[in-house]
Amino acid sequence: MFFASDNWSGAHPKIAESLTRFASGFAAAYGTSDHDKLIEAKFNDMFEREVAVFFVATGTAANSLALASVAKAGGVTFCHSDAHVNSDEGGAPEFLTGSTRLFPVEGDNGKINPEALDIAVSRFDVPSVHHGRPMAITVTQATEAGTIYSLDELDAIAAIAKNKNLPLHMDGARFANALVGLGASPAEMTWKRGVDILSFGGTKNGCWCAEAIIFFKPEMAEEMPYIRKRSAQLFSKTRFISAQLEAYLEGDLWLDLAAHSNDMASRLRAGLTEKNSTRLAWDTQANEVFAVIDRQAAERAREQGATFYDWLPPREMPHLLNENETLIRLVTSFATTSDEVDQFLKVV
Amino acid sequence: MFFASDNWSGAHPKIAESLTRFASGFAAAYGTSDHDKLIEAKFNDMFEREVAVFFVATGTAANSLALASVAKAGGVTFCHSDAHVNSDEGGAPEFLTGSTRLFPVEGDNGKINPEALDIAVSRFDVPSVHHGRPMAITVTQATEAGTIYSLDELDAIAAIAKNKNLPLHMDGARFANALVGLGASPAEMTWKRGVDILSFGGTKNGCWCAEAIIFFKPEMAEEMPYIRKRSAQLFSKTRFISAQLEAYLEGDLWLDLAAHSNDMASRLRAGLTEKNSTRLAWDTQANEVFAVIDRQAAERAREQGATFYDWLPPREMPHLLNENETLIRLVTSFATTSDEVDQFLKVV
Amino acid sequence: MFFASDNWSGAHPKIAESLTRFASGFAAAYGTSDHDKLIEAKFNDMFEREVAVFFVATGTAANSLALASVAKAGGVTFCHSDAHVNSDEGGAPEFLTGSTRLFPVEGDNGKINPEALDIAVSRFDVPSVHHGRPMAITVTQATEAGTIYSLDELDAIAAIAKNKNLPLHMDGARFANALVGLGASPAEMTWKRGVDILSFGGTKNGCWCAEAIIFFKPEMAEEMPYIRKRSAQLFSKTRFISAQLEAYLEGDLWLDLAAHSNDMASRLRAGLTEKNSTRLAWDTQANEVFAVIDRQAAERAREQGATFYDWLPPREMPHLLNENETLIRLVTSFATTSDEVDQFLKVV
Amino acid sequence: MFFASDNWSGAHPKIAESLTRFASGFAAAYGTSDHDKLIEAKFNDMFEREVAVFFVATGTAANSLALASVAKAGGVTFCHSDAHVNSDEGGAPEFLTGSTRLFPVEGDNGKINPEALDIAVSRFDVPSVHHGRPMAITVTQATEAGTIYSLDELDAIAAIAKNKNLPLHMDGARFANALVGLGASPAEMTWKRGVDILSFGGTKNGCWCAEAIIFFKPEMAEEMPYIRKRSAQLFSKTRFISAQLEAYLEGDLWLDLAAHSNDMASRLRAGLTEKNSTRLAWDTQANEVFAVIDRQAAERAREQGATFYDWLPPREMPHLLNENETLIRLVTSFATTSDEVDQFLKVV
Repeated sequence: MFFASDNWSGAHPKIAESLTRFASGFAAAYGTSDHDKLIEAKFNDMFEREVAVFFVATGTAANSLALASVAKAGGVTFCHSDAHVNSDEGGAPEFLTGSTRLFPVEGDNGKINPEALDIAVSRFDVPSVHHGRPMAITVTQATEAGTIYSLDELDAIAAIAKNKNLPLHMDGARFANALVGLGASPAEMTWKRGVDILSFGGTKNGCWCAEAIIFFKPEMAEEMPYIRKRSAQLFSKTRFISAQLEAYLEGDLWLDLAAHSNDMASRLRAGLTEKNSTRLAWDTQANEVFAVIDRQAAERAREQGATFYDWLPPREMPHLLNENETLIRLVTSFATTSDEVDQFLKVV
Repeated sequence: MFFASDNWSGAHPKIAESLTRFASGFAAAYGTSDHDKLIEAKFNDMFEREVAVFFVATGTAANSLALASVAKAGGVTFCHSDAHVNSDEGGAPEFLTGSTRLFPVEGDNGKINPEALDIAVSRFDVPSVHHGRPMAITVTQATEAGTIYSLDELDAIAAIAKNKNLPLHMDGARFANALVGLGASPAEMTWKRGVDILSFGGTKNGCWCAEAIIFFKPEMAEEMPYIRKRSAQLFSKTRFISAQLEAYLEGDLWLDLAAHSNDMASRLRAGLTEKNSTRLAWDTQANEVFAVIDRQAAERAREQGATFYDWLPPREMPHLLNENETLIRLVTSFATTSDEVDQFLKVV
Repeated sequence: MFFASDNWSGAHPKIAESLTRFASGFAAAYGTSDHDKLIEAKFNDMFEREVAVFFVATGTAANSLALASVAKAGGVTFCHSDAHVNSDEGGAPEFLTGSTRLFPVEGDNGKINPEALDIAVSRFDVPSVHHGRPMAITVTQATEAGTIYSLDELDAIAAIAKNKNLPLHMDGARFANALVGLGASPAEMTWKRGVDILSFGGTKNGCWCAEAIIFFKPEMAEEMPYIRKRSAQLFSKTRFISAQLEAYLEGDLWLDLAAHSNDMASRLRAGLTEKNSTRLAWDTQANEVFAVIDRQAAERAREQGATFYDWLPPREMPHLLNENETLIRLVTSFATTSDEVDQFLKVV
Repeated sequence: MFFASDNWSGAHPKIAESLTRFASGFAAAYGTSDHDKLIEAKFNDMFEREVAVFFVATGTAANSLALASVAKAGGVTFCHSDAHVNSDEGGAPEFLTGSTRLFPVEGDNGKINPEALDIAVSRFDVPSVHHGRPMAITVTQATEAGTIYSLDELDAIAAIAKNKNLPLHMDGARFANALVGLGASPAEMTWKRGVDILSFGGTKNGCWCAEAIIFFKPEMAEEMPYIRKRSAQLFSKTRFISAQLEAYLEGDLWLDLAAHSNDMASRLRAGLTEKNSTRLAWDTQANEVFAVIDRQAAERAREQGATFYDWLPPREMPHLLNENETLIRLVTSFATTSDEVDQFLKVV
C-alpha cells in the first residue's frame, strides 16, 4: 500500500531490460552517440515537429535549466503558488538561473487563475529596473493538486504569455498522466497551445532516471549545451538515458503506464467517495488523490502498512477540515495494483 | 578498438543485472531508503571509518559540490593546471561554488608540484580582500595524465594543506584505477593521507552513472543536503544508484574491473614501446596511455576503425613532437579486450 | 513642490562642507584610515556598544549584503510583501546572496503581522531540503508605507526570530525618521529589541551617498569584508563616506534633519485632512504621506509643478478608491520647506 | 611623501566645490535628471560619438559589470596575469558575471603579449562545452606595471578580438594618465582602436568616487540597467557623480591632473636613476614607478614618513633583486608635489 509518491516505485521491467540490452559495446559519450540521436528523432516524431532535446538528471534540473535558458537580470517568473518550482525544489530554480524571482499566482485546484496571472504580469508593464521585469510563465501539467489543465485553460495562459511576449514553460513531471487524462496528443498539449519549453518527465512514470528538456523552437536552445554543462548536468554515458527512453516510448509503453496509474487513482477516488468515513478534498484527474479522513483512520491505515503524506490544506480552503480530520495525499504509479488499492480502501 | 575514453563503454553485466533486481517494489525516495543506507554502510566498511556519502549525477557535480561545501567569498582553489576542474568542466566548479577562483599550479606528469603549490598558496599568506584567500586544494587521482600520485607524494600535498589549514579534496573519477595501480587500500589513499573530501567515481569503471561525494569528517557535510538540492543534484529514485554500487562493490568487482583496465593499458604501453614507429610520451600507471606517433599512422589506425583523441602536448614538453608526429591519448576500460589492444598495435 | 522622493533632494550644506574639509591630504584607502576608524567609534557611541560598520554604495547593497552575511543554501528570508527588498531592488537581494528566496508576509500598514509571520516561518519547522529552510527575517523601519513599528511591535517580531533562531535584519533606509518619530534611542530601536544587523541609511536624509551595514554582534561580520569586496562594494576613498557621516552625526544634525522632514509630513497630513477634496489613505508617522485625491486635482497639481508618484493601493484595501480618485505618495525631506508644503496644499 | 597609491589622495578642490554647488535643489533620482543627461552629452562629445554611460560605485564594479554585460555560460575572459580583475578584485568579476573564468595571459611590462593571447584564445577555437568558450578580452590602460600600450599595441590586441569575434574591454582606472602619456585623444585610444567597452575611472585622478562604464556601441548596453541594479550599483542621488564629473571634465581639468601626476612620476624616475643606491626595475610611462632599492634604504625612507608598498617581482624577472634589495612601487597623484618627490629622493 505505497501511496507516498510515484517516485517510490522502481523501474518497469522493460526499462530495466533495455538498460541490459544497451549495456555492451562502445558509444560516443556526452550525448553524441547514434543511440542518442535516435531518441532525439523519436521526440521529433512524437511532437510532430523538430525539437531540441536535452537530458538532465532530475526534474528539478529540467525546470531550473529550462528557466535558465530564458533568464535575464531582474527577471521574474510567474508560477502557481503551489508549483513544484516554488515549493519543492530547494531554491534550485533561483540558484541555477542566476536568481530569477518566482512570483506566485493564486488559482483554485492547483491551476493558475488566468485573471490573477494577467494582473500579476501587468504590474510589470512599465519597465523598471527596481521592480524587475517579466521573464517567463511556467505551468505544471498535471498540477501538484492532481488536476489537469484543459486545452482551453492552457490557451488562456498561453494568450497572456503571447500578449506579454513571454516564453511559456510546462513542468511535465507527470506529463504522461496529463496526456492520458486529457486524451490529447503531445503536440496538442504543448506547442499547439503555445508552450515553448517542456520539462519531460519519465522518472515518476516507470523510468529510473529519465528527464529531458524539450525546446519546441530549437533556436531557443542555442545556449543550452553550455548552460547544462555549467550546471554539471551533462551525463557522460547518455546511453543509459537513451536506453530507458527507447523502451519507455516503444509501443506507447509510457502512455499505458500512465493510463494504469490514472486508473488506479480513479479506483481510489471511487472507493473513497463510497465510504462514510472519508471524502475527496477536491476532484482530481491524474494519478493523485487528495482525501479528507479521520486522523484515527489515517493512523490505522499507517499501522497496517500504508504509506502516504499528510498535506497542508490550500489557502483557498481554510475550512476544509474539522479538528478530527486530516488531509492526505495518495499517489498511484505504474506499479500500483488493484489489490493494493482495494486493501487500502479496506483498512482506511 | 575504442580508446577514445572510458566513458564510451557501457555498463558491466553485473551492474545491469543489479538494476533489474532492484527494479521492483517500493522504496523511499531521495536517498532515505534502506537500500541507500545499506550502501552507505558499505562505504563505511570500505573506508574503515564513518563517512558521509552523497550521490550526485556526474563527476563534474561531485567535484563542484565538494568544493561548494567549503566555499567562501573570495575563495581560491588550488589545482593542477591540467586538472579536470580547470580544463574540462565548463565552468561548473566556479558556477556551483558561487565563483571560487581556480588557481592552476604546474607540475610534471599531471601532478601538482608541492614546491610550486607551497609558493602559490603562500602568496595569500597575508589576508587580503583584494587578492582573495585560499579555500581548498584539489588533487586528481589517477591524474589526467594517466599517472598516479604515490602515497608520499600525497603526503607532501597534504602537509601543505594541513599547514595552511585548507581542506584537501581528491577528484577520484578514476579512483579504482589509482587504487589498483598503487596497491593501496581506500583508507590509505585518502583520509590516512589527509584527504577530507573525495569524488568517488564509478561511471568510468563499469557503472552507468554512479558518482558520490564522500566526506571523511561527516561534520563537514552538514550543509551538503541543501547544497546538493539547490544544485538540482538530488535524485528521487536513488535506488538506481544504490543498485549499481551494490554490484560494483560486491566481491570487489570494482577493483577487478580497474585491474583489467590497467592491464590493458600496460599491454598497450608494452606494444607501443616495442614498435619503431611509436613511443610513449611519458610513462603512465593507470588506464591511460599517451603515445607519440606519426600522423600518417594515426590516420591509418582511424581508417581501420580505431577511436582515440589527439592531445595537446604539456607546456613543460615543448619539444615533444617533430612536425610529422602527433600526441594521442588511449584510454582503456573494463570493456577493453586483449584482442582489441593487439589489433590496434597491428594497425598503428 | 518636490514630493517624489527624499532621494530627489541633494546634500545638506554641512555635508558638502565636510567633504570640502576632508578633500585635502592623504589617507589610507579601503576603509583603513584614521578618519574611518573615528567614524566607527562614533557608531559605537551612538549604539552604546561595540558594533562592526561596513560602508557600501547603496541602500540596496546594504540590505543585500546584510542578508548575504547570513546566507545559506536553500535559505528563505521573510519580509513584508511591500518591503523594499521584495519590490524595489531589482533582484539584488537574491543575486547577491547566492539566491535566497524572499517569502512575503502580509500585514496592515506596511508592517509584518506577527501572527502571519509565525505561521509562515513555522511552515519550515520540519527541516526539508525540498522546501528550503528559514534564513532571516527583515523588517523595514520606517516602513514603505510611512508607518513606524512601535517598540512593542518590534519585540513581537524579534520574539519569533529568537524562537526560531533566526537573525533579524532591519532595513533602516529611513532610520532617522523612525527614530525621531518614535522618540527612541538608536540602541532601543535596534539591538535592545533583538535586531542583529542594520542597514543604516543616510542618503535619503541629507547625505550624498552614505549607507552602512551595522552588525551588533561583530563576530557575525567575519565574512563581511570578503563578501563586500566580492560584490564590488568596497570604496577606495572611504574618506568621502566618513566625511559625510562625521557632519551627519555631529551635533545630532541627522536627527534634526529627520525631525524637520517628519514635521513637513505632519504639516502635509494636517492640511490634506482639512480639505474636502482630499483624505489620507492611512495614517503615517514618518516622512511619507499617502493621500487619496481626485485625478483632476492630481493633474492640476502636477501642472503647477508638483512632483509625486501615483501609488498602487495595498491588497488589503481593495475599495480604497472610487473611480475618479487616485492614491498618491508624498515624500518630504530635510530640504522640504513649509512654503512648499503650503503651496502644494493650495494647488491640490 | 605619500606614494602608496593614488587612491590615498582626496579630492581636487574643484571637485569638492562642484559638489557644494550641486548640493541644493531637487533632481530626479537614479540617473534620470537633467544633470545626468548633461554629463552623458559631455561623454558623447569627448568620445566623438554617441556612447552609453553607466555610473557605478567602484572600479571593480565597472570592470565586473562591463564583463557581465557580455557574459555567457562557460565564458572565458582573457586578461594579463597581473591585471586588476585577476589579482585585486576579490573575485568580483567572477561573482558578478555569474562565474566567468579569467584566463591569464603573460606578457612583459604588464602588457598582454599578442602572440600569447592568440595562442590562448585559439585553444578554444573548436567549440566545446567542456573547455568553455571565449567571452571577452580585457586590457588595462595604463597597465598595473605603470606602462602604456601604444596605439599599435592596442591594434594588435584588437585585431585578435575582431578575428575571434570577441568584445574588447579596457580597464581605464588610470585612463587619463594613459591618455596624457600617449598624447592621444579619447576616441583614438578606445573605439578607434576597436575597444567596445571602457571602465572610465575618475577616482584615482582627483574625484571622490566617479567611475563609469562606457559602451561605444550603445546597443550593447541594453541589459545594463538591469544588470547594474541587480548588482546594487545604481546610486539614487546620481547628481553627486555628475557633479564630480562636470568639474572633472570642465576645461580639461582631468587631463591637467593626469599630466601633473605623470610629471611627478617622471621626476621620481629621473631622480632614482641618478642615484647610485637605486635603479628603476623597468621603465614606466604613467604615474607609477617601480624601483629596486636596498632594504635598508626602504626602511629608512619609511622611518622618515614615506609610504609605499613592496611589490612582488614579475615572473619574467626572477633575477631582478639581489638578496639585500627590494622592489617598491611608487604611485604619484594629482596631489603629489615636487617638494614631496624631492624630499623622498633625498631620504631614500
